Formats: sequence, structure tokens, C-alpha cells
Amino acid sequence: MSAMSATRAFVAAPVAAKLSASRKSATGKPYKAGARRSVAVCAKTSAPELDINTKVFEKELVDVAGEGEYIVRGGRHLFEKLPEALKGINTIGVIGWGSQAPAQAQNFRDSLKEAGMDTKICIGLRPSSKSNDEARACGFTEEDGTLGETFDIIAKSDLVMLLISDAAQAKMYPRILAAMKPGATLGLSHGFLLGVMASDGETFREDINVVLVAPKGMGPSVRRLYEQGKDVGGSGINASFAVHQDATGNATDIALGWSVALGSPFTFATTLEMEYRSDIFGERGILLGGVHGIVESLYRRYVKEGMSEEDAFKNTVECITGPITKTISTKGIKAVYEAVSDKAEFMKAYSASYMPCKDILYECYEEVQSTNEIRSVVMACERFDTFPMGKVGTSAMWKVGEKVRAERVEEDIPLNSFTAGVYCACMMAQIDTLREKGHSFSEVCNESVIEAVDSLNPYMHARGVAFMVDNCSYTARLGSRKWAPRFDYNLEQQAYVAVDQGAAVDKEIESKFLNNPAHIAIANCCALRPSVDISVKFGVGSARDVESADFKMGDKATADAK
Amino acid sequence: MSAMSATRAFVAAPVAAKLSASRKSATGKPYKAGARRSVAVCAKTSAPELDINTKVFEKELVDVAGEGEYIVRGGRHLFEKLPEALKGINTIGVIGWGSQAPAQAQNFRDSLKEAGMDTKICIGLRPSSKSNDEARACGFTEEDGTLGETFDIIAKSDLVMLLISDAAQAKMYPRILAAMKPGATLGLSHGFLLGVMASDGETFREDINVVLVAPKGMGPSVRRLYEQGKDVGGSGINASFAVHQDATGNATDIALGWSVALGSPFTFATTLEMEYRSDIFGERGILLGGVHGIVESLYRRYVKEGMSEEDAFKNTVECITGPITKTISTKGIKAVYEAVSDKAEFMKAYSASYMPCKDILYECYEEVQSTNEIRSVVMACERFDTFPMGKVGTSAMWKVGEKVRAERVEEDIPLNSFTAGVYCACMMAQIDTLREKGHSFSEVCNESVIEAVDSLNPYMHARGVAFMVDNCSYTARLGSRKWAPRFDYNLEQQAYVAVDQGAAVDKEIESKFLNNPAHIAIANCCALRPSVDISVKFGVGSARDVESADFKMGDKATADAK
Repeated sequence: MSAMSATRAFVAAPVAAKLSASRKSATGKPYKAGARRSVAVCAKTSAPELDINTKVFEKELVDVAGEGEYIVRGGRHLFEKLPEALKGINTIGVIGWGSQAPAQAQNFRDSLKEAGMDTKICIGLRPSSKSNDEARACGFTEEDGTLGETFDIIAKSDLVMLLISDAAQAKMYPRILAAMKPGATLGLSHGFLLGVMASDGETFREDINVVLVAPKGMGPSVRRLYEQGKDVGGSGINASFAVHQDATGNATDIALGWSVALGSPFTFATTLEMEYRSDIFGERGILLGGVHGIVESLYRRYVKEGMSEEDAFKNTVECITGPITKTISTKGIKAVYEAVSDKAEFMKAYSASYMPCKDILYECYEEVQSTNEIRSVVMACERFDTFPMGKVGTSAMWKVGEKVRAERVEEDIPLNSFTAGVYCACMMAQIDTLREKGHSFSEVCNESVIEAVDSLNPYMHARGVAFMVDNCSYTARLGSRKWAPRFDYNLEQQAYVAVDQGAAVDKEIESKFLNNPAHIAIANCCALRPSVDISVKFGVGSARDVESADFKMGDKATADAK
Repeated sequence: MSAMSATRAFVAAPVAAKLSASRKSATGKPYKAGARRSVAVCAKTSAPELDINTKVFEKELVDVAGEGEYIVRGGRHLFEKLPEALKGINTIGVIGWGSQAPAQAQNFRDSLKEAGMDTKICIGLRPSSKSNDEARACGFTEEDGTLGETFDIIAKSDLVMLLISDAAQAKMYPRILAAMKPGATLGLSHGFLLGVMASDGETFREDINVVLVAPKGMGPSVRRLYEQGKDVGGSGINASFAVHQDATGNATDIALGWSVALGSPFTFATTLEMEYRSDIFGERGILLGGVHGIVESLYRRYVKEGMSEEDAFKNTVECITGPITKTISTKGIKAVYEAVSDKAEFMKAYSASYMPCKDILYECYEEVQSTNEIRSVVMACERFDTFPMGKVGTSAMWKVGEKVRAERVEEDIPLNSFTAGVYCACMMAQIDTLREKGHSFSEVCNESVIEAVDSLNPYMHARGVAFMVDNCSYTARLGSRKWAPRFDYNLEQQAYVAVDQGAAVDKEIESKFLNNPAHIAIANCCALRPSVDISVKFGVGSARDVESADFKMGDKATADAK
């Protein structure tokens, strides 16, 4: 429902001058712990941290708020390059059948066909999995060898796209790695496994490639926009990619070929480590946990102040998933400040909320970085038999929400200045945290802004925040369940108390907001978004609807591959 | 204010028959990970897991709900055994001056004097520390060599009692261990350091003893009750003790000598690992985090149901720290159920709250067990410069509390059946969690019941729950801040929703409550409590009052020893 018409108003300027030498190869090691990008933003474009070592595709240097980043532009005209990029890849095994697998397998198969290649896409599942029927319905069959048992498929594949759940990866990776052919490529759509292995003190075997292609949207969107892209140029979901280990010397082009074949309009460079950090952190922050804690605390506050429950819902959840989301999606974060009726109220809320949110965000980031959070997820999954995960959308507030949504008149949703201040403070605190921790602007904008306003919030607008939290991947649900109450308490105990005590606006926080280079970066990144809106109408499209959809942050396909 | 008159109504039966062979020596290794005691409780006393390898003192076998545990009874008549127990210990260095150090140093000095020994007790502090003045005021001086620089004192001590804060220990342990004499004894009052070292992959150097004596109360109480004990037999704070490493062959007696010299009426056996697990876990659970989350969620619920704010405070915080605490302290947990006016209401609340609380408690326990929680504490302390810890006692509810306390008529505090059900559910879920994780009954009762109702809740009764949370050790405060909101959300989203939907009482949960062997264990353990009440009157006594007091869970003396 987000009307994100990515006009070319903010065109990222391809930087003509090729930088003479890359400063760092993308063909190997994760970031050194503690390595930081400079956060100073120069007027001139600085050299990218990550090079893209492609022999097949064309990298472009784009300017994001003064920082140079290499990207690769996609498009169906590049399918003719797939045979070269995927040289030596005769069999591709897609393991699992959760959110990403059906989409990626079908997109890949369609693209290979269009490229005139006979490379096989095969699905690997447990024989007893119910997903076998779904895979057969999509044309993957035992008869033609494109559907088989997990480890049989792994053993015969040159590219193993491991799209099972985080929890299943954590459990099964020793067996999976052992089953792979020497010289094969392990393909991930999430760096989670690296975190698990780091926490276990393990490393990948050295005779395989390890790459990542992480579409910035959930599986159903990856499929739907690919199909739309057959008629409309530029449609698709952007992806980030990484080459963690290059045993064969062409891992970069295998990864880029995969990304192009999925239909990614733009592919950004990252590392496995930066990807899992920003991803796991982001969903605990403004994407899910943060927004949930914010609306719970604000709703309570407004009701206590005398608002009716329905009005409180409108001034919190509806306001965020409606006008605030739409404004950020089309005009950026500062535009929210410009749009509110009471700028002083916005800034009061922003100033008081920024540090309490950043406090929790820093804690969360460092929990992820230290691999504590990954260990927690793995331990929690092992407790599910005794302690099934509780629903968060059960309380009275979310019942009120159902009624409010049923009677919604989109134009009448209020843009509450206080709510806007709190939400923007949390989003900006997340942006600043990721920047201070050394993430590239494209990653920061994707994980803090674009994924919120163009992917998740529109779903929340349709069903409520809590519903979304209750229906995403285990990793995301567990994280939201853990961190939302923390945002809630910190806001209530620190931010709102300060406001009620008449705390003055912190001029430094205000000024940092108004002049944050992130505003330019978001505009630059918006120009690199696909030109076609993601439709989130339910029951429409080629893939599952949101009821069963699992989101980008992970798959819940555990059962598929055990 | 808790009128805990530990009568001998529940006398622990010393088990006459000495068990022929100890099943496990206490002289070394922590529990094997995953090792569990049998949770089945036999009619006959089972053999203790932990032997006490003393040549100087007398161990007694006591029966705790059918389980045998060795303990050592203290008393001033045993001071004559101190020369033998502390053979070879000529200088004792007490490092730090937080909550425990002033109390333990003075008790130890008084006891040695009474034993006619000339063993020196010396305080080790940074020269710039303000605590030097306080130490001098207590008679420790540079002139007679009983006050000096931290590492000078460590280097010359035969027993180093490391009573600096958790955070300082985490930072400085490599230097501290390196400074110790070969054959010296490292004395801890908390197993936290073992967790830090386990998380760092480090072990203690092999040529020193490593022992623990952990008084089950905060420093000021340790001192005050010792002084009372000069006139009244049996007065003092119980302690647990552990021998983690015995390089000299007499580590057990050094540790027991220390415990007896502190005035512990009873000393229980544990391991460093079980101690830090139960301690860090316990304060995150019912002792601080659990009770805070419970009262926040219940207060909100009652106000929403139409209670006045003052009545809601009385029916939550006041009810728990008043009549519930008093009842448990004197008659046990089941007596609360017997005392409430509406047993059906109690059981409805108990049944609905037990699993949601246990869910969080299991998560918390496993976070502690995996050393995640310790890593979190260390990381959080490193963020304090940027993100000082926020206060939790700022919100409107705690202002109401001030007024309610000012006008309190003790006898009029309501015993709310619903509140009682929720509180008892959380306490019993904690007991069951610890038992299922293999802790001895004495440890379980101390960390879940006795410390709550006889130590912390009385302070909360005087100042409110949030004040207590805001004024304990960093480790405890951080933990409470992290876990209280989790209890709150889980109760609101799961327990109260179930109650409101008319969920039937779970007969298994009800029956497990009514027949829990913990009721007998608590009675048995109560008989092993000191015979003198802990007074919590402010500004009275030999040590600091609660304003500056740091509690047993750790010291906040970081600054003293840096």
C-alpha cells in the first residue's frame, strides 16, 4: 500500500572516474573486528570499502552521501551473460521450501531458460516433507531429477542455495558442508550461519566457495516482482551480495549471476558478517522490535492522557504505518518533521527519545556482534517443545486495532507530531548506530528505512504491528519478543518522563537530526530502488499471501530439511 | 521489617548415618555441563552430591526434603579452630571497599583477634580512592601496613579476598592473578569471575587455591548481625562456600575458616559455577527483575480495571512486600494460598502465570549458563560513559508509591488473591527451574525464597521495588532492567489474556503447586536460618544504610580498585 513511486528525482550519480586501485578485495575475509569506516562525510566521493571483483558484469561506482560504493545494475538483458557467469555450474540445488526457496528457485529457472541454458534447478527436501507437493505443483519433480532428498541434492549440486531456516542451518551445517562437492559453491541468503559458526569456533572448509545473495524483501515479493519484470523493465527486489570465500576464482561472478537471475535491479556489496549483523539487528530495531515497543508505550500513554482507545490506536499504529510510512517512503525522514503540524512537539519527543532508543540499539547491536544473540536464538529454538513461542498480538490494544482497521478512512489517519518524533528518533538512532559501527550507507538505508517503509510497514498497515511480529521468521519473532519490551520500558522510564518534566530540547540532537547526511543517503538510495511498487494485496500474486508468508529475515522452513 | 522468627519448628534432621563414601569431591572441577541431579524426591534421604573435605571443622549431614546435604555449623566457639584452619595464612588482603569488603574485613579482624591470632587483615585500594578515608576510619592504616595499594597488598597476601565489583574483576583479573604469590588462596564472594573466564576461554593458574565464601546477604547485614552475635548466639548471615581449586591440600579449611570468621551460622556447599548461575539468575528472576515486571504489569491491569492508582499500588507492591512476604517468611509459600480470601482467584492467576514466567526464567537461566549474560554485563559496563544506566523508578506509579508508603497502615495492606497467585507462580517457577537445572535444595531456597522474603523484599517494603532495583550492583541492575520488561510482556500477553478469556485452571500445575517438595525444603532450610532477624531500619547499625548500600549480588566498588 506504500505508494513508492521511485522517480528518478534523486538519481545516484555514477562516478565516472574509475578508482585506480581497489582498497579491499571482496573475495575473502569478513571485516576485521573493530574495523570502522570513517563516519566523516566528505564533499567529495570517497573510495569504496568493498570492490566487486567481476569479470563478467559491469560494476558502477555510485555516490551515496559522499561515499563511493560499487554496485551492479541488473536487468533481463544481462541474462545472456549467465552462461559465462555460471561457468561450471551444471546443477543448482535449492535446499528448503520456505519463503525464499520457491521464489528464488522459480526465478532462477525462468532466467536460465531465457538464457538458453540447460543448467538444472533442483529442490532438496526431506522425503516426508509436505513441501514436496508444493514443489511438484511448481514443476519440480522426481521424474526429471529436479526434486530429491536434501543430501542427495547437496551432493550433486555445483551451487547449493541453502534456504532452510536459521535454526535448521545451525543444527545441520556440519553435515551439509560435509556433503558438498569439492569446488562447489555454498550460496546463502543470510549471513546467520557465519555467526553460528563463529560462535562455535568453526570455519568453512577451504575447498568450496561461500557466497551470499540476500534479496531485500520476502520471497513472495521476489517472485511477484520478477514476474512483473517480464513486462516492466526495472521491476524486482534489490539484493546485497558478498563473497566470503573464493576457492575457484570466479565466486564473485557466480554470486552476481545468481542475483541477476533473481531479477535484482541493483546488487550492493557487503560481507557476510556485516549482512548478518545489520539484518538481525535491524529486525530487532525499527523494523519489528522497535516499532512494536514504540506503539505499545505510546498507546498506553495516550490512553492514560484521556484519549479513547480507538483514537490512541489511530495516533500510534495507524499514524506510523500510514502517513509516516508514506512520507518517509516518498520524501524521506526529514519530510515527516516538515509535515507535522506541531514541530515543537515533534522535536520534544525526538530529543527525549533519541538516546533512550540508541541505548537499547547499541546494546542490541553489540549482542549481535558478539554472537550472543545468535546463541540465544539457537537456544530458544531448542526450547520450543517445552515453551512454544507466545503470541504478542493478544492484548486488548490489538483487538481495538482490528476495529479501527475495519473502519479505516485512509485520509483521516492523523499524523501525530509526538508519535512522529518518537518513531523518527528510533529510526535515526538506528541509522546512526549502524553508521558508527561501520556499515555502508546502502546497507544502513536498506535495513533501517527502505525495508521498514516499503516492505514491512505496509504489511503492518494491513494487519497490525503485532500480527506481523507473530508471523515472521523465528529469528525475527524471538528478537522482537525480546527487544520490544526494552524499547517500551526505556521510552516510558526515560523519554516520556523527561518530556513530562518539561525537559528542554537538546540542541545538539536537534541539529544532528536536521543535518544528518543520512537524509542525502536515503535520497540517493531511493534512486536505486526498483521502479515498480511492491503490491501487498492479500491473496493476489504468484506466491503465498502474508498469512503464510515468511519474511526475508529468515525462513521458517525448518521442517523441510530436517 | 520481616518478622522472621526462625523458630525450630522445622528442624532439619541431622542424618546420623555418615555416608560411607563421598560421591564427588568438592575440591575441584565445576559441575559437568548438563549434569543434572535427579529431581525425583525420595522418601529416604539421598546421598549428597557435594562432600565437604574438612579436617578442622565438623560437617553435618542434613535432610532437605529427602535430599542429604552436608553443611558446617558456625559459632563463636569455633574461633579457637581458626589458627589450625588458616595455617600458613599470615596476611589476608581484602581488595576493594564496596558493600562486602568493609563488613568482611572487620568481621574477620575481630574474629582473628578473639582467636588470639596475629594474622593481619589489610585493605588494598587505589591510592586515589576516596574509600581510603573510610578504611582509615575503620582502623586500617598505612602506618601499621594494613592499608595499601591494590597490587602491593595482593602481592604480599596469603589469602586475597577479591571483593571489587564484577566489572572490575572482569577487567583486571589477568593482572590480579599474575600478582598473586604461588600457593596463595584467591577468595571470591561470587562466582562471576569464573563465568567471565569461561567466556574468555581462560582458566586459573594451577599453583593457587581458588575458593568462594558467599554470604547470603549484603555487606551491612553481614556486619550488623556479626556484632549482634557478640551477645546473641546464632546471629549472623549464612553463606555458601566452594572449593574450585585446591593447590595446597587445605583449601577447604581455609574457606570454612573464612566463613566461620565472618560469623556464618551455617555454611552450605556449592560450586563456583552453580553459585554464579543461581545468583545471577536469581536476581534477574523473582528477587528483582521478576518482581519488578510483575508489579508493573499488575498495577497497569488493576488501574485499567478501574482501581484507583493508590489502591492499585496497595494491591500490588504493598501486598507483595507486606503480607505476602511476611507469610512466606514465617510459614512458607503454600501458606499464602491458605491465607488468601479467594482461593479460586489465586489459582486462576497462578495457573495462568506459571508457564509464562517459567518461559522467561528458562531463557534467563540458559543465558546465564551459556555465559551470554556475563558477556552482556561486561559489554554494558563498557558503554556506561556513553549510555549511563537509566533509572527505572521514575514513572508515575512510583510517585504514587511514595504517597502510599507515607500513609501506610501496615495492618490495612490488602492480601490480593490475584497478585498472590501471580507472585507465587513466578517464585515457584524459579524454584522448579533451578531444581530442574540441578541445584541443591539449599541453594534453590536461598536464591528464590529466603533472599527474597528476608533480605530484599523488606527493603522494597521500605522504599519501593524500583528504588531497590535502582540501587543494587551493576550486574543486578542491568539484569533487572533487561528481564523485568520480559516478565511484564509475557504476563500481559499470555497470562492475563488467558485469565480474561476464562481459561480453566490447569490441574497439573495446581497439583504440582500443592504437592511441591519445595514446601518441605523451604521449611527445612528455614530451620537453618539465623535465629536473629535482620533489621533494615535506615541509618542504624554499623555499616552503610540502604542509600549507599550495595547488595550481596555484587559490589559497585569498581572505582576502588581500578
